[in-house]
Amino acid sequence: MSRRLSITVCVIALLALTSGRVTPAAQAPPPFNFDTGVSPIEIVAPAIVQVLLQVTPANDAPIVLRHTTLAAHVWYDAIAPYHPTAIGVSSNLGRRPVHERTQRNKNIAMLYASYRLMNSLQPTFAATWRGMLTSVGLNPDDTSEDLTTAVGIGNAAGRHVVADRARDGMNQLGDEGGREFHRRPYADYTGYKPVNTPERLFDPSRWQPLVSTTGFGTFTSQQFITPQWGRTKAYSYTNPRRFNAPPPRDSRIENFAAYRAQAVDVLNAQAGLTDDQKMLAEFFDNKLNSLGFAAFFIIQTRNMSLDDLVIYDFLTNMAAFDGGIATWKEKAQFDAVRPVSAIRHLFRNRRIPAWGGPGKGTVQMKGEEWRSYLNTGNHPEYPSGSACFCAAHAQASRRFLGSDAFGLAVPAPAGSSVVEPGVTPASPTMVGPWNTFTDFENACASSRVLGGVHFQAAVDEGLALCRPIGDTAFEFLDRKVRGISQ
Amino acid sequence: MSRRLSITVCVIALLALTSGRVTPAAQAPPPFNFDTGVSPIEIVAPAIVQVLLQVTPANDAPIVLRHTTLAAHVWYDAIAPYHPTAIGVSSNLGRRPVHERTQRNKNIAMLYASYRLMNSLQPTFAATWRGMLTSVGLNPDDTSEDLTTAVGIGNAAGRHVVADRARDGMNQLGDEGGREFHRRPYADYTGYKPVNTPERLFDPSRWQPLVSTTGFGTFTSQQFITPQWGRTKAYSYTNPRRFNAPPPRDSRIENFAAYRAQAVDVLNAQAGLTDDQKMLAEFFDNKLNSLGFAAFFIIQTRNMSLDDLVIYDFLTNMAAFDGGIATWKEKAQFDAVRPVSAIRHLFRNRRIPAWGGPGKGTVQMKGEEWRSYLNTGNHPEYPSGSACFCAAHAQASRRFLGSDAFGLAVPAPAGSSVVEPGVTPASPTMVGPWNTFTDFENACASSRVLGGVHFQAAVDEGLALCRPIGDTAFEFLDRKVRGISQ
Repeated sequence: MSRRLSITVCVIALLALTSGRVTPAAQAPPPFNFDTGVSPIEIVAPAIVQVLLQVTPANDAPIVLRHTTLAAHVWYDAIAPYHPTAIGVSSNLGRRPVHERTQRNKNIAMLYASYRLMNSLQPTFAATWRGMLTSVGLNPDDTSEDLTTAVGIGNAAGRHVVADRARDGMNQLGDEGGREFHRRPYADYTGYKPVNTPERLFDPSRWQPLVSTTGFGTFTSQQFITPQWGRTKAYSYTNPRRFNAPPPRDSRIENFAAYRAQAVDVLNAQAGLTDDQKMLAEFFDNKLNSLGFAAFFIIQTRNMSLDDLVIYDFLTNMAAFDGGIATWKEKAQFDAVRPVSAIRHLFRNRRIPAWGGPGKGTVQMKGEEWRSYLNTGNHPEYPSGSACFCAAHAQASRRFLGSDAFGLAVPAPAGSSVVEPGVTPASPTMVGPWNTFTDFENACASSRVLGGVHFQAAVDEGLALCRPIGDTAFEFLDRKVRGISQ
Repeated sequence: MSRRLSITVCVIALLALTSGRVTPAAQAPPPFNFDTGVSPIEIVAPAIVQVLLQVTPANDAPIVLRHTTLAAHVWYDAIAPYHPTAIGVSSNLGRRPVHERTQRNKNIAMLYASYRLMNSLQPTFAATWRGMLTSVGLNPDDTSEDLTTAVGIGNAAGRHVVADRARDGMNQLGDEGGREFHRRPYADYTGYKPVNTPERLFDPSRWQPLVSTTGFGTFTSQQFITPQWGRTKAYSYTNPRRFNAPPPRDSRIENFAAYRAQAVDVLNAQAGLTDDQKMLAEFFDNKLNSLGFAAFFIIQTRNMSLDDLVIYDFLTNMAAFDGGIATWKEKAQFDAVRPVSAIRHLFRNRRIPAWGGPGKGTVQMKGEEWRSYLNTGNHPEYPSGSACFCAAHAQASRRFLGSDAFGLAVPAPAGSSVVEPGVTPASPTMVGPWNTFTDFENACASSRVLGGVHFQAAVDEGLALCRPIGDTAFEFLDRKVRGISQ
């Protein structure tokens, strides 16, 4: 009971943090109890979320998912020696006797493993990671790898995961391609070059980097985020060529009627957005709030054991991460145009009905001034990453839980919009409920069209591409949990 | 004496703020004294600096200079009716009798004028500007324009300056070119398109937008900041065609020997940077610290009256602002390559001696990995904006003060570098001293070559272009102060 309560408190704290409404000082957590507490949720996740919010927008999916997946990965490898049958994904550290399989030992092992991982993932925040351990009375300088102790298991698990993942193809260290100096973590090394520039749409079928601004005079243009994600080593399958989306036929300008029709669909959706649709779009745009909260909701309402909580969190993150690999491979291959570029191209000097900006409702504007309700992401359009992540997450959940039942609904207070703060929604509303994971993934997919950042085909194919990856992720981890080393 | 003391305190507070080492809460100012205080320095400048640090890098010169110049402009127009002879630049609000020419009335007028201006320049920070007035007991809702009162003079002066400057060509409102929706303040409306992309240097003579990253996975590329600054209305001259720089001959790839030679000069300078040179480069890279501090130093050491302080601050900022207009016109015209693009182009796969990164000293690296010690700015190279601003500031100062004598020196504590924090300088040192303004402008110019962001020709011609604009600025404002309305 106390565990469920502390989870609830921490989920609320996490949400408050991610929505940016409460300063960190306001949610000083209660002292951590190693015997009953859940260190991933109470200690590690809040520290990671705070760092992520400093370094990357919450909708930068590749970076966010890399962090959440690798964190769950070290938790899993750290508790495997205390599980009746599980073996780690990157390590096989033996098995501890029954009397050592305590929540205390698991928490200690997970905290040391997290410490090792985070110093590799985010070395500039070394002081934060030290504080994460010292705040619960652990010694960050204890580098023991004695596999008869929780400290040693944690350190060893962390080291193995780091060794397995630091060079997995995503260029975390910034030295891929032989770079020696001025390393650039996560920089492209595949040689991706957009055919369009921010100023000119040379090929209306292809992706165009967009110009963005903070609104105060400085403008920047996009760079395709981690084109190399499609070449990154997946957890649950060997060959990403297994997973393919059909070519985005309607995004080819030579199929003009279809090209125009799918653009008009997005245009019409944006011109008639309701408050509920806006809040739905915003909910799924923030990966920490949507996928993160979905997992926490299940963990809380299904009253999971610590082991199951770790396994389920790793499973759903891994499914999305492996889905992202297949999706990014296709994004790089098809390099498809975003709705905003297509709509400006088609209707440049024509008047069209459109969202007029925060609080302005629907107006008639020149097509060249059109923009999507959500910020359009920094990667090609097809297929949709968000639809993929939701489908992989949903299918992995169905397999793990043995049921499609879900039940999540999230309140949206009046004025809580981040796009139209203080204005939308006009009265308190609810995002959801989603009674099933099927409802959830379908809402997720359509939210991207409502948000103006995807065509319908991209979200349909995003779902189709990644549902099977929910299966591969489940089957991969299930074998590991049952102790089958391949 | 108390005024000089409060200025000293506020300069230190301002420096602490801009260096980011002290939280705002740590320097709560003493209660403002309307009869002896200096509201521009004690109240308005700190508020503006805090906002600027939130919205723009301190080396985004066009935006920073627009704020500092327009702020000094409203202060000047607000005190003109209390001066024996001066008339405003954007207003002529009559003249108040001698007994009303008090420091209290001038402070009140300047605070209301600043409030009006800042609500136009930075409307999203409306709460900050309200707080600026209420913190000293003034009522922001008093919109009187009764020209027999300080409140009315301040409000009227602010309104006139806003009316004069909101549409001066810099696109502050974001609607130039007829834009109706999703306005984009300071966006280009001249149609500038770089010939190079971040990925390809098609023409090695021309400017290339650079890729930058926070280091955490998200990359962006540059957009030329305010190409339209060259079309903006100057204060002190009518036709910017009066001010021209010779074409940057050595930046033309067809003059290959000269092209290579000027690149090698920068390369050699970067390969042998001393701690003193690094700190010099950093000092002049931050416009608030360098130009801002230079003006405050003169105000403080010359024991200026409130009127002279306002006039001198407006003069030096206006000189730099008008210099920037001529410089940006030439930047847009010549669109010249930056050292980093030229060096990577010339030495792509060759080993060259170079700065290896924070704390790494000089190393041998592949030319394609080269980067400048300072971040290279988001605008074409030639001529140097910084050299221009320093020369205009220096010449305006010489004319106003009747002397080249300066005397500034700034301590640089051990480890105070922002590029190599904790490492450079190894022991405490001093930036300067500059005994004359000539020393100051020359140090400013060479600091840009040392910082790796400019060729020598660009700083030489930046000085030559803008020294005469120090004269036009002085002569323009001198006429206004003497009451000659043209």
